[in-house]
Amino acid sequence: MKIIVNTHLKKGVLDPQGKAVHHALLALQFDEVENVRIGKQIILQIEDGDKTKTLKRVEKMCEDLLANTVIETYTIDIED
Amino acid sequence: MKIIVNTHLKKGVLDPQGKAVHHALLALQFDEVENVRIGKQIILQIEDGDKTKTLKRVEKMCEDLLANTVIETYTIDIED
Repeated sequence: MKIIVNTHLKKGVLDPQGKAVHHALLALQFDEVENVRIGKQIILQIEDGDKTKTLKRVEKMCEDLLANTVIETYTIDIED
Repeated sequence: MKIIVNTHLKKGVLDPQGKAVHHALLALQFDEVENVRIGKQIILQIEDGDKTKTLKRVEKMCEDLLANTVIETYTIDIED
């Protein structure tokens, strides 16, 4: 089973990496870009099994390791 | 217009960050995890305009700056 976890900085948290990329894009004449935010995409290959149980486990992984829940939010998607 | 760019290491390219996270997950007893790959998700806020033109421009951004096309692939999605 393929699970995709996306983590992003919460709104209001400064994203210096995004700011740097935005600045570089403007320097390259991509003036239409208004804002850039950068997050992480984690692709997990997990043993096939009960979806509900797997989702619960992945949520626990996010809380324990994958996301810094103080400043980040995360979304979990299953891709079959 | 909100554009989501995902960049990932090409197949066959070693992903040390993914390996480290996989190792950490196993250490935390998440034994069902078989593999982990980590990519970047870049969220661009772009001035509204012609979709086809915007996609072309974002593709150029990827080639010029956002993705290292030697070792990475990228996907582009429009989210309205």
